[in-house]
Amino acid sequence: MKKKDPKHIEVCFTPALFNNFKNPEAIVVAVDILRASSAIVTAFMNGVKRIIPVGTIEEARAYKEKGYMVAAERDGKVKEFADFGNSPFNFTPESVDGKEIVYSTTNGTQAIQLAGDHHQVLVGAFLNIHAIEEHLKKKKREVIILCAGWKNKFNLEDTLFAGALVEKMLKTTEYTTICDSSKASLDLWQMAKGDLLRYIDKAAQRTRLKKLGLDDVIEYCHTFDLTTKIPVLKENYLVELK
Amino acid sequence: MKKKDPKHIEVCFTPALFNNFKNPEAIVVAVDILRASSAIVTAFMNGVKRIIPVGTIEEARAYKEKGYMVAAERDGKVKEFADFGNSPFNFTPESVDGKEIVYSTTNGTQAIQLAGDHHQVLVGAFLNIHAIEEHLKKKKREVIILCAGWKNKFNLEDTLFAGALVEKMLKTTEYTTICDSSKASLDLWQMAKGDLLRYIDKAAQRTRLKKLGLDDVIEYCHTFDLTTKIPVLKENYLVELK
Repeated sequence: MKKKDPKHIEVCFTPALFNNFKNPEAIVVAVDILRASSAIVTAFMNGVKRIIPVGTIEEARAYKEKGYMVAAERDGKVKEFADFGNSPFNFTPESVDGKEIVYSTTNGTQAIQLAGDHHQVLVGAFLNIHAIEEHLKKKKREVIILCAGWKNKFNLEDTLFAGALVEKMLKTTEYTTICDSSKASLDLWQMAKGDLLRYIDKAAQRTRLKKLGLDDVIEYCHTFDLTTKIPVLKENYLVELK
Repeated sequence: MKKKDPKHIEVCFTPALFNNFKNPEAIVVAVDILRASSAIVTAFMNGVKRIIPVGTIEEARAYKEKGYMVAAERDGKVKEFADFGNSPFNFTPESVDGKEIVYSTTNGTQAIQLAGDHHQVLVGAFLNIHAIEEHLKKKKREVIILCAGWKNKFNLEDTLFAGALVEKMLKTTEYTTICDSSKASLDLWQMAKGDLLRYIDKAAQRTRLKKLGLDDVIEYCHTFDLTTKIPVLKENYLVELK
């Protein structure tokens, strides 16, 4: 029996480059470690029913007027119309269990929506990375890790997540990569993983969050496997993958 | 006397992301290690008078019909109308000294032309990296390293050059970086530099060139400081920086 060719895993560093990676047969893992994908995964861990990711404050406000619960902040301040800000710590079981929530985020939403025509779009974070790995290995499809980045630029924290997931996937011979971005992500991850929080200290987003007093989430967002829940895109909202 | 704020150095991984970096006050170092920028630097080392970089085979052919010497190949084969292919080894003193040459290259040309409205566009390679460093430190302007990449994707060899140049620039307190791409480039460079050729073995472009029988240039293109010549963009052609 002929052995099947291994599937490819690729890393796309920013939504601005996604056109070069498109492959409708692939599963896309969208990631925005600080903080959107970590917050969304937390919300599902704590029982949220559905999350509607939106890209602009105006969309968030429109949903609020229709009666939705809304997470929206800009420059570290919760918007006056919103129920809470964007920190994962807001998504407690008391706040979100059984609810439908609108989450406003620029970079993260763009990444999630861009891949809508692909086989599946999952939301990945360190918080659910093992569950993502298990699911991908079961599905055996091509994989694209889509980093939200920062305003269409490369960022370190999403790249480290990508490297960690590439490392896991390449442990089986069913996956391979010829993508320089995957190799760079893997090398950076292997350099960083011995002291992840120390490495992440040099990320620009770490500095931005610190200035806004929002850096209490750094350690949490780099914690492994608190949940097996995987958010998956269904039309324009996220539900738990069953 | 108040100390001046340090200047920033940034790394743009592909021409597709350059819109996010534009800064007309900055000096741009365009790089395409395998092989365009290494070949262009070699040509100036060997006395070429002027190089006209063109993006398409059609443009190259049109120049040939006007009587120019033309370097043009696709998929490893010298185009039938051209004088020679794109390898740096073609640009010997016998072939290029005092001449004006058209050089056809997709990724490299795009990178060089994109930055035309910036303060200065230099062509950088390992072959002239020290000269580039000296020039930049003298000019004391913001610096953007623009990697040609591969079809708008990230590549390893240009990133390693970027990391090497970032390392040199950060040795003076007159330069700093807050750019995650610069930090990633620097880390990858510091991981690779102990055995650069071994590291570059995993680059996708290494594999592409090998398949085409064009990988004889790898070691040469990763050789440091064979020349102090710096090609600089003047209108739509390159001349030696004086």
